[in-house]
Amino acid sequence: MIDLLADEMQDLYDAEKQLVKALPKMVKAASSEELSQALGDHLGQTQEQVTRLERAFEMIHKKPRNKACAALKGLVSEAEERMQAEKNEPLSDLAMICAAQKVEHYEIAGYGTLKAWAEDLGLEDVADLLAETLKRRKGGRPEVNRDCRRPSYRHFG
Amino acid sequence: MIDLLADEMQDLYDAEKQLVKALPKMVKAASSEELSQALGDHLGQTQEQVTRLERAFEMIHKKPRNKACAALKGLVSEAEERMQAEKNEPLSDLAMICAAQKVEHYEIAGYGTLKAWAEDLGLEDVADLLAETLKRRKGGRPEVNRDCRRPSYRHFG
Repeated sequence: MIDLLADEMQDLYDAEKQLVKALPKMVKAASSEELSQALGDHLGQTQEQVTRLERAFEMIHKKPRNKACAALKGLVSEAEERMQAEKNEPLSDLAMICAAQKVEHYEIAGYGTLKAWAEDLGLEDVADLLAETLKRRKGGRPEVNRDCRRPSYRHFG
Repeated sequence: MIDLLADEMQDLYDAEKQLVKALPKMVKAASSEELSQALGDHLGQTQEQVTRLERAFEMIHKKPRNKACAALKGLVSEAEERMQAEKNEPLSDLAMICAAQKVEHYEIAGYGTLKAWAEDLGLEDVADLLAETLKRRKGGRPEVNRDCRRPSYRHFG
């Protein structure tokens, strides 16, 4: 069971690291200043999440391996493809927000599962650390979510 | 904007069709009867979702193209890899539930965005159809969710 927990932690660790690489490109590509700002804030949070996962690995006396998260790779490549295909900038912003929503939900599902597993393994300190990320992710959603996915968003930029 | 909506609908259409193929393998692989049943129910719902998307395509006078959803492909390959690696059956079930959660969240993010876009395009009939799937997805989660992702689930089988 601890190996399954470590495996899923590894998956999210790689996912966060892929995001740390992808987000600066999205910040640069966003045509709206508000979206660019929200994605920039998200980058900072993602770096904090990487640090929290590294602490969680130490707590369970494991080291993160070098294994790619296939799902996040798919999500990122889909987002990049859509952004490149969409020449109209406000629509490219909408495509980016849709991609960001999917990544957020990926993380909520992953961290939610991890937290439940850690609790049942009696690893309260690990569960608390993961709960911290989960709280920020769920609370953080409206930053990108708030009306941004609607076409009225066109008027922001 | 309508092309972006169609593009995202296309993405979810392929995702649902990939799931229609993947779910029977998961139903077969599940060691717990309850999980197997939940996944079987999910297969039925997924087929309904495919039909609703086909109706939505008709409503906007577009046809679904043959384009793979990279993100779902990644999610499914990750799930299959994890299931094969986990020789211990109850742990394989847990890995499967984790994968199912991620797919659910992928759909919630995708359909939520689509619904908002359809509403703002004034496509109320399309929005209603997508809302139906979204309602079932959000309401449907506890079927797989309920305590299943916890290790106590080991006692179900």
